[in-house]
Amino acid sequence: MGRQKEYLSKLSRFFQIRNLLLRQALAECLGTLILVMFGCGAVAQRVLSGGSHGLFLTVNFAFGFAAMLGILVCGQVSGGHLNPAVTFALCLLGRERWRKFPMYFLFQTIGAFFGAAIIFGMYYDALLLRPGSFNFTSINNTAGIFSTYPARHLTLVNGFFDQIIGTTALIVCVLAIVDPYNNPIPQGLEAFTVGFVVLVIGLSMGFNSGYAVNPARDFGPRLFTSMSGWGGAVFTARDCWFLVPIFAPFLGSIMGVVIYQLMVGFHTEGEARDKKQGTVQENLQLANVASSNNSKEATKEIY
Amino acid sequence: MGRQKEYLSKLSRFFQIRNLLLRQALAECLGTLILVMFGCGAVAQRVLSGGSHGLFLTVNFAFGFAAMLGILVCGQVSGGHLNPAVTFALCLLGRERWRKFPMYFLFQTIGAFFGAAIIFGMYYDALLLRPGSFNFTSINNTAGIFSTYPARHLTLVNGFFDQIIGTTALIVCVLAIVDPYNNPIPQGLEAFTVGFVVLVIGLSMGFNSGYAVNPARDFGPRLFTSMSGWGGAVFTARDCWFLVPIFAPFLGSIMGVVIYQLMVGFHTEGEARDKKQGTVQENLQLANVASSNNSKEATKEIY
Amino acid sequence: MGRQKEYLSKLSRFFQIRNLLLRQALAECLGTLILVMFGCGAVAQRVLSGGSHGLFLTVNFAFGFAAMLGILVCGQVSGGHLNPAVTFALCLLGRERWRKFPMYFLFQTIGAFFGAAIIFGMYYDALLLRPGSFNFTSINNTAGIFSTYPARHLTLVNGFFDQIIGTTALIVCVLAIVDPYNNPIPQGLEAFTVGFVVLVIGLSMGFNSGYAVNPARDFGPRLFTSMSGWGGAVFTARDCWFLVPIFAPFLGSIMGVVIYQLMVGFHTEGEARDKKQGTVQENLQLANVASSNNSKEATKEIY
Amino acid sequence: MGRQKEYLSKLSRFFQIRNLLLRQALAECLGTLILVMFGCGAVAQRVLSGGSHGLFLTVNFAFGFAAMLGILVCGQVSGGHLNPAVTFALCLLGRERWRKFPMYFLFQTIGAFFGAAIIFGMYYDALLLRPGSFNFTSINNTAGIFSTYPARHLTLVNGFFDQIIGTTALIVCVLAIVDPYNNPIPQGLEAFTVGFVVLVIGLSMGFNSGYAVNPARDFGPRLFTSMSGWGGAVFTARDCWFLVPIFAPFLGSIMGVVIYQLMVGFHTEGEARDKKQGTVQENLQLANVASSNNSKEATKEIY
Repeated sequence: MGRQKEYLSKLSRFFQIRNLLLRQALAECLGTLILVMFGCGAVAQRVLSGGSHGLFLTVNFAFGFAAMLGILVCGQVSGGHLNPAVTFALCLLGRERWRKFPMYFLFQTIGAFFGAAIIFGMYYDALLLRPGSFNFTSINNTAGIFSTYPARHLTLVNGFFDQIIGTTALIVCVLAIVDPYNNPIPQGLEAFTVGFVVLVIGLSMGFNSGYAVNPARDFGPRLFTSMSGWGGAVFTARDCWFLVPIFAPFLGSIMGVVIYQLMVGFHTEGEARDKKQGTVQENLQLANVASSNNSKEATKEIY
Repeated sequence: MGRQKEYLSKLSRFFQIRNLLLRQALAECLGTLILVMFGCGAVAQRVLSGGSHGLFLTVNFAFGFAAMLGILVCGQVSGGHLNPAVTFALCLLGRERWRKFPMYFLFQTIGAFFGAAIIFGMYYDALLLRPGSFNFTSINNTAGIFSTYPARHLTLVNGFFDQIIGTTALIVCVLAIVDPYNNPIPQGLEAFTVGFVVLVIGLSMGFNSGYAVNPARDFGPRLFTSMSGWGGAVFTARDCWFLVPIFAPFLGSIMGVVIYQLMVGFHTEGEARDKKQGTVQENLQLANVASSNNSKEATKEIY
Repeated sequence: MGRQKEYLSKLSRFFQIRNLLLRQALAECLGTLILVMFGCGAVAQRVLSGGSHGLFLTVNFAFGFAAMLGILVCGQVSGGHLNPAVTFALCLLGRERWRKFPMYFLFQTIGAFFGAAIIFGMYYDALLLRPGSFNFTSINNTAGIFSTYPARHLTLVNGFFDQIIGTTALIVCVLAIVDPYNNPIPQGLEAFTVGFVVLVIGLSMGFNSGYAVNPARDFGPRLFTSMSGWGGAVFTARDCWFLVPIFAPFLGSIMGVVIYQLMVGFHTEGEARDKKQGTVQENLQLANVASSNNSKEATKEIY
Repeated sequence: MGRQKEYLSKLSRFFQIRNLLLRQALAECLGTLILVMFGCGAVAQRVLSGGSHGLFLTVNFAFGFAAMLGILVCGQVSGGHLNPAVTFALCLLGRERWRKFPMYFLFQTIGAFFGAAIIFGMYYDALLLRPGSFNFTSINNTAGIFSTYPARHLTLVNGFFDQIIGTTALIVCVLAIVDPYNNPIPQGLEAFTVGFVVLVIGLSMGFNSGYAVNPARDFGPRLFTSMSGWGGAVFTARDCWFLVPIFAPFLGSIMGVVIYQLMVGFHTEGEARDKKQGTVQENLQLANVASSNNSKEATKEIY
């Protein structure tokens, strides 16, 4: 046992990455991989089994719990965004540095790419045996397993609106969950709660175009499908639909931040600031050591 | 980063609302908006997809988790009632001031109105393409997505009873969850538990008329549908059914308060009071400083 | 506000019951009422809607979450057994006094009776309009909404075995959840976990005869149906099946206690006892005031 | 009451097993029995009811919550692995001693064997009445209730890959949940989270061959079926498929350990080690009693 521990320790030292941003990006990559692997896996199971091993409901559950597990795996290292739109919202609010944004975006997309690749490998036999599986003109086309395509009834304008609304809803709920002035849930349950947010978005906003609400989750797998049998049609299909789940989520992110801050965020934040100022003034009047300690503690609590 | 934070802080000061009641009403508005948006969205997804993207079960899940998320978003600011019947019950028990009731009712209804509007916009294409969608005489009528209508088998009397029972069940469970003398769940899990209450009401009391059990959740969206294509029929349909989910829940609220208090509440409350009196008497006998401190603490704990 | 509080306080004093056992029995009554109301309500919704508003899965969810809510409502007052078989197991292990058993059994049955009555009233219109609803020879017979009947394939012997297994599984899991020496879940989550136990029993042991595993939940509603239209046939049907869910659960309760204690309970208990004796001996050797305090604490922790 | 307690205490002393490893193995046996009993019970309910009392989704839920309950029952005694692949991963990382591995493997398999036996007894009537239930050439063959068989479309190579991927996903998530340097969830919720992992694996990776991802869960019930009517065909069917769920999970276990450690584990571990060394050096400079105490505490925290 001693020798094994020694060996493990050596390995650990050899592979340890000391650059914080790279470590965080790697963690985001694994988290998004898990999200896409389980989520797209559930779509694959539903589509390839013809409904016998899956419903739209099981896809919703899978994406919800996949988000939960992805966040659990990487949350303590990188924050567990799994979604460039979430990273964007937190940067907008000054809670994450802007230089994290491109790095996270890149590694989230890479993770989503490999998540799709794993599901492709896992269900390779089933995909191959299904006639017309790789053909966009066939009704058996399975590109929709990996990235989202709009339903027949959807126009591009309504689809754009759909993605904005979905992301707005996601961001409002996520901000409420992580708001330091309005922290309604016990420490450590954030991942579970975000999982329920993703679940409920799928239950109520999934019919139009499959609720991507995440540029990385949609673009990574789309890139993979373009390389593995479906070709460029994945980009040109439905009037270049692929641009919608890339750009609309960022607009939704801005709207979510504005709505949450105007209706809840600014007021709870302001209240905390007012209380702190009250404490500071009180302290100034008392002007003694004990109170200055309190003031420091209050400050620490607020920033 | 420094400049961004400064700018955000200025924005925060500019938009901060200092009136507590208005802040709380705004939070209730957002919470109810989330409840109705996700809940009615799930109904829309089920109806418009013809069952391929939703079941009655998914609607139950959506309303349950939507209630959970709505409470999480606004709970710390306003208490997270989302339902005038809940506000009414808490006022009856003297836990909220009566002047909150009309304000909460109004803003909950406004939130529900806009929640329905968002879903209307989101599924606009799908609604438009469905023949007879806006026509009450068509079997494709979709008014039921937004507000509740009784099933064919239901008489008005049984419907009234149905809404009373549903609200009574809701209030008994909610009172147990928030009872300060019988607090059975860890701090911070109230929202999750109320979500399960809403879920289970949907699972077992949804067949008759779709379990509104909430005047705001039903009237706000109904008002919206009357303005956006369905017209006055939303009020006159089924012998003015719309009055039932407005008035019955308040009766249910009273019944819930009476049942819970008679069977559990008064006794746990009384026990706490008895213990306190015991402590006070003991303290009187001892008559020293230390014990008087204890008494104060006990008092604080009870009121 | 002051006058309202005064009035509420008077009411509270007037209705307060000071007898502990009666208070506990009333709480059990309300808890079991909630269990049966939500559970049987879900069966009613599934049967009466012909499957459009319910699946067997929704019934499982409803019973699981109904158990959870029932326990939450009465747990702090009475322990939240909701099931004479659970009370029986805890009496066997000496954790509850035997004189509680008949009182709990009676009030659990009364609660189940009224829970069924509420669902009967709620779905009265739907029951009345269904042809053959109250007729045992019709395939539309709805007695199965309220109490359990064996599936066509089941013999009485296998049905008896089925009920024993189901209750054994329930008791093993419940004992693990409430074992003071093997307490694996955070304080306050017991109700949620028991809810999952009931859910999973329904998912995997519900096909034979509808997993009563609870004499009160089955007999109370059966008594109600015998009085409200179905008559004595509810007792004589299927070779007096009604006796099975009354007697088998107690045998299952004994088996559950034996299995859990032999495989886990005795050993963890023994380990705790060994540790305590170790502490006591150590203390005897040291024989000083400080250590005797420790010993008292250790004792308190164990009993 | 006093006599009952005395008698229970005597029984407890008589049956108490003092060998730690045997006690742990017994607990694992009971845990795996619960996993297989509930999980295979749900498959039986789905298959034997012809879909009316179960879906593939209910099987996923059942296995997820069964894993949760199995872990809850035995977790504090044995760690709650329920799966030789999990034991293997923890041995690889030096967190469990290698000598535990064969003992756990054996008792997990025994538990799975008896879990299957219980379900066989419970659904004996339903199995017997189904024509061709015990016949491998019949489409009504029910061997798949107890152990896994590949779907028609699956080749052995893809099936092997499928089992590796499934176990890798399981192990990555389990390692994140129990990693002492990256402990993202509150103490006591590990079992719930692992339950969700098992659920989501079923939702997205169950179509190919029924997600055994556990040598004991698959081999124990297979052995039972070979003895109880299906005969040797359970081993020879589909090119000796039974070897895949025995060997592939261990490869997946290795892959899961490597991926998690390279992408998250080594870095968080290294960070903790770096911090500790920093503390130690600081302490050396200060070289006083107080700091040496801190160092000891830090050490305890890390190992």
